[in-house]
Amino acid sequence: MKALAYGGPGKKAVEDRPKPQIKAPGDAIVKITKTTICGTDLHILKGDVPTCVAGRILGHEGVGVVDAVGAGVTAFKPGDRVLISCISSCGKCEYCRRGMYSHCTTGGWILGHLIDGTQAEYVRIPHAETSLYPIPAGADEEALVMLSDILPTGFECGVLNGKVAPGSTVAIVGSGPIGLAALLTAQFYSPAEIIMIDLDDNRLGLARQFGATHTINSADGKAAETVKTLTGGRGVDAAIEAVGVPATFGLCEDLVAPGGIIANVGVHGKKVDLHLERLWSHNIAVTTRLVDTVTTPMLMKTVQSKKLDPTRLITHRFKLDQILDAYDTFGRAAETHALKVIISA
Amino acid sequence: MKALAYGGPGKKAVEDRPKPQIKAPGDAIVKITKTTICGTDLHILKGDVPTCVAGRILGHEGVGVVDAVGAGVTAFKPGDRVLISCISSCGKCEYCRRGMYSHCTTGGWILGHLIDGTQAEYVRIPHAETSLYPIPAGADEEALVMLSDILPTGFECGVLNGKVAPGSTVAIVGSGPIGLAALLTAQFYSPAEIIMIDLDDNRLGLARQFGATHTINSADGKAAETVKTLTGGRGVDAAIEAVGVPATFGLCEDLVAPGGIIANVGVHGKKVDLHLERLWSHNIAVTTRLVDTVTTPMLMKTVQSKKLDPTRLITHRFKLDQILDAYDTFGRAAETHALKVIISA
Amino acid sequence: MKALAYGGPGKKAVEDRPKPQIKAPGDAIVKITKTTICGTDLHILKGDVPTCVAGRILGHEGVGVVDAVGAGVTAFKPGDRVLISCISSCGKCEYCRRGMYSHCTTGGWILGHLIDGTQAEYVRIPHAETSLYPIPAGADEEALVMLSDILPTGFECGVLNGKVAPGSTVAIVGSGPIGLAALLTAQFYSPAEIIMIDLDDNRLGLARQFGATHTINSADGKAAETVKTLTGGRGVDAAIEAVGVPATFGLCEDLVAPGGIIANVGVHGKKVDLHLERLWSHNIAVTTRLVDTVTTPMLMKTVQSKKLDPTRLITHRFKLDQILDAYDTFGRAAETHALKVIISA
Amino acid sequence: MKALAYGGPGKKAVEDRPKPQIKAPGDAIVKITKTTICGTDLHILKGDVPTCVAGRILGHEGVGVVDAVGAGVTAFKPGDRVLISCISSCGKCEYCRRGMYSHCTTGGWILGHLIDGTQAEYVRIPHAETSLYPIPAGADEEALVMLSDILPTGFECGVLNGKVAPGSTVAIVGSGPIGLAALLTAQFYSPAEIIMIDLDDNRLGLARQFGATHTINSADGKAAETVKTLTGGRGVDAAIEAVGVPATFGLCEDLVAPGGIIANVGVHGKKVDLHLERLWSHNIAVTTRLVDTVTTPMLMKTVQSKKLDPTRLITHRFKLDQILDAYDTFGRAAETHALKVIISA
Repeated sequence: MKALAYGGPGKKAVEDRPKPQIKAPGDAIVKITKTTICGTDLHILKGDVPTCVAGRILGHEGVGVVDAVGAGVTAFKPGDRVLISCISSCGKCEYCRRGMYSHCTTGGWILGHLIDGTQAEYVRIPHAETSLYPIPAGADEEALVMLSDILPTGFECGVLNGKVAPGSTVAIVGSGPIGLAALLTAQFYSPAEIIMIDLDDNRLGLARQFGATHTINSADGKAAETVKTLTGGRGVDAAIEAVGVPATFGLCEDLVAPGGIIANVGVHGKKVDLHLERLWSHNIAVTTRLVDTVTTPMLMKTVQSKKLDPTRLITHRFKLDQILDAYDTFGRAAETHALKVIISA
Repeated sequence: MKALAYGGPGKKAVEDRPKPQIKAPGDAIVKITKTTICGTDLHILKGDVPTCVAGRILGHEGVGVVDAVGAGVTAFKPGDRVLISCISSCGKCEYCRRGMYSHCTTGGWILGHLIDGTQAEYVRIPHAETSLYPIPAGADEEALVMLSDILPTGFECGVLNGKVAPGSTVAIVGSGPIGLAALLTAQFYSPAEIIMIDLDDNRLGLARQFGATHTINSADGKAAETVKTLTGGRGVDAAIEAVGVPATFGLCEDLVAPGGIIANVGVHGKKVDLHLERLWSHNIAVTTRLVDTVTTPMLMKTVQSKKLDPTRLITHRFKLDQILDAYDTFGRAAETHALKVIISA
Repeated sequence: MKALAYGGPGKKAVEDRPKPQIKAPGDAIVKITKTTICGTDLHILKGDVPTCVAGRILGHEGVGVVDAVGAGVTAFKPGDRVLISCISSCGKCEYCRRGMYSHCTTGGWILGHLIDGTQAEYVRIPHAETSLYPIPAGADEEALVMLSDILPTGFECGVLNGKVAPGSTVAIVGSGPIGLAALLTAQFYSPAEIIMIDLDDNRLGLARQFGATHTINSADGKAAETVKTLTGGRGVDAAIEAVGVPATFGLCEDLVAPGGIIANVGVHGKKVDLHLERLWSHNIAVTTRLVDTVTTPMLMKTVQSKKLDPTRLITHRFKLDQILDAYDTFGRAAETHALKVIISA
Repeated sequence: MKALAYGGPGKKAVEDRPKPQIKAPGDAIVKITKTTICGTDLHILKGDVPTCVAGRILGHEGVGVVDAVGAGVTAFKPGDRVLISCISSCGKCEYCRRGMYSHCTTGGWILGHLIDGTQAEYVRIPHAETSLYPIPAGADEEALVMLSDILPTGFECGVLNGKVAPGSTVAIVGSGPIGLAALLTAQFYSPAEIIMIDLDDNRLGLARQFGATHTINSADGKAAETVKTLTGGRGVDAAIEAVGVPATFGLCEDLVAPGGIIANVGVHGKKVDLHLERLWSHNIAVTTRLVDTVTTPMLMKTVQSKKLDPTRLITHRFKLDQILDAYDTFGRAAETHALKVIISA
């Protein structure tokens, strides 16, 4: 089968690989119909994720059709259409039983990382019964690809951890795909203000279309000041960090109101400064989270009931044999205005 | 009246001052029967709290007898015995209505800081109806002095923020009075393990008497390793920081399990490093809090029902005219083994 | 001044009364600009509320202008425009400190019940600082009249107690003003389905306009069956009882899914049957609540930010000297299609 | 093998049965070392549980040794010592993923009810990986038998649903095994008062030994009055119903304070009266729950750390071939003072 393989820092190629086989009773083989590319895939390609070794088939998102199942799988059968979670969850370990699937002792984020992933014709999914979700009849499969990772990430790590609530004020630092996913799902809770902060006016324009009540281009270094003005001097109840560098985290520390939360979503490569000499008495929380995808069933209901339209995040479409073009488009997002790209079988 | 006045960095003196007067309808004047000294008073004396100016009468803890009340005060009358909260709360502002009295827009921590405090014969208490608590008949007043600040601080900032729960594992970094207050109140929730970490073997000995299941002298730099061993490699569910320096906060970052909480109690003078390059995916929270004393009524119930014996924190007793000796004893705690000192009228 | 006085069961009259005076330091006198009539006022008139005695000026909702304040009131001054909460809250007692203002030991629901109310030119408001809310410049005062009682009631007793959540299913039994208030505020949380049940097709039509995803006329006795069909056999996560009779409570028992909540909003005059022989093992909760109006500040923010338009509940407008007509119109709601009526000074 | 079989209402017998076999990939066969009898077993024998048919081997509690596992089971192997949960949980269905194992779509309470149970030499356990728990080395197996059902039931349905908290007041109506299990586990949260109510002075004596702060024999019909006196007229924060008849539920309605919770644990055979004509405005909750055993891992930690000694509930011991005597002793508890009986292989 065809697959996009990581070849070590800076290298990727479409390769011919054997079709994956069932290895454990809980496995399923899924024929991929649609997948996408994640910012994390770009991180891997830069060499930022040393646990991902050369030769790995990338990709941890997608929908498809069950092709085969292991002896222990009763919930799915060949022919079933399924959504693949980016997080594999055994459903049995202490972490899974607490809903913290990201730390599953035999799962977590392994797809396209520690085992071969979804940017291929077929993928092997361990713990299939608790890592795949049946696709309702009539559902828009492109919409559901957004539920593999980006929407639960924005929602769980940003919106839920940030305790967004009716009437509250929210700032989202970073208006890329993940910040926009947080923006879309923050609106489930009817906050009074959602202030979107970025350096890219195009993305801020999108943010306004997606429901931001205010947008701030932080290039002038005055974003914190502007937010304070917009919030009567208090700052925001929830500051969602959706970039992953020290400067944007630092901005969140300046934005958060007493009693507020900094919900970190960004993937950080460096430590940050936490200004406890000021914040120790501000009654705040800083939260971190690798998405658990514990809200996937709920998000599917919001999509089915039209409370959420994930297709707004999709800007480009490719076939699997154009995946290198897809990477190129996604990798030059500032120019191409790409958010999420769909790659179809 | 006699009062202990701050004279600028490094200076304090017992001075003669006029008895305080009612200034606002919500005020009460309280004749102090017992007060104590807080680590924060030592910080002020070092010059670490620039918002506290020379001339200020120190002290934000104590019990006493109501001497006079303003026109708006109906809940108390002269002669009532009262516990003084270290936090003044108006009961009306948005923060007070949310239970975040520490950020009361006209109160918060003002006693012995922005207005004259309790280390005196009399003190003026603003917002008296919502900043004083009636002392039940027969209550041990020395015990209740511990409820002005130290026990709610350990409990709210450490135990509640740390979400200590039955069966959970807790590490408390710092076995001084505030760490011990967290230790005593953590036991309200029956955690499986409470690991106490300090550099002082005497204090660790006390911690064992107070209910710690394990104690670690961190002088050898191996505390994190030892905690990992004690917790099957996971780390602790709650790491309570009760010191306030970068090294101890850093230790908490090394101790906390995935899904756990670092509950900061310490007063920090410097920023700390937050290792998001590692912790971004650990599903943790870092919390900060200036005590709200919102749990004071509940803590009084636990004292009255003998679930908590705050007098275990009291090591020395002085009269008000010996308050300089009291400061000396409290200031040399490593030698004197002082925890909390009681100063009686 | 003119006032609508209760004259014992079945009797009411517009009377001339002396303008109220400040009685306690915490009082304010408010000149009413707009008030309304509540279903509870009709209950009083039927003689269903024996604690309300003849002679009482009715009304517990409204907005106005502060005319005078007591010696202890610093947060308001004459000329301030204010929203009156139906619940008087001292801000000091144990219940108020827990946010349960409805059970304030010297307040609660007293206006137009135990003390004279708002259907008059002026009203005396006890505990003014914690029972009045400043009206933001430019706010729509008619909209805010809906925040005195009906919207916080639907929201707190129905939506918050019912834990309405994104993707969840909700049934609201009773499509009168209070059920519609629950319907409007349930949408803060983006549930997947809101099923509205009533006997009146006009009200069900309104419910669809207000956002119900399904409506059921329960006249045929098959409402429970229909709800089961709509929910894949499970029943609803939240069943909100907004009528107050045994039959509608019983319907909620038939509608609620395992793990769900019956949030009672209705004012009941009789006991109901609780079918524990079936429900003991269904992991449900039944909640009751007299509105606390603890969410009033939050609801004001949602109105100011256009997340909620309370004027949709207003169907008729009268002047104070037409208040008997207003009662007539409101009392014959089935014919007049009245929801809430505004009575202006 | 020997097994205790239900023979229809009023009938039971020790019978010879074939050893159970693996039927599904997720099954395990467990050799029982210790089991016990539950009040529910007596209900079945009275004919109160029509879903349990004649021929069924009874019992849903116990510990044992894994004898065989199905093809899908990787977490356990023959020879492993295991605790059997009374609730079978697939770990995959929507209910299991929400932690509501009691409503598992292919599990729940099936052992000794819909499939053969543990009062036998061997038992087949479906969904073994998520329904069995490994027994730590050195653990007291008799203590752990109490974790199959009775302790999680008292804890989850009574203590957790009742939100028992430090300083709160609790009444437990019913001082039988389940009420005592609630009493033991309520102490995890250090409530100020635990008032135990029963008609049997022997059981009330035990309650005092087990930590009740007050006991009330309700024979005189004045229990509610006495509780009001003990609580300053308020009533209790949590009223735990541990009997299951209308009178005791009604007593809980009389005991609960405004803002409190009635946590139903009792298995009811009849509807009860819910006095909404009084309680609609009391801001209370009534909760029901079939135990989920979601807290079993946590309870094991509290046992291992000596915060809980479940053996206090064990009064008698028998061998499996004496199981009819065990039933006789347990069935005549008023005379024999039996709480829980251990039946060993």
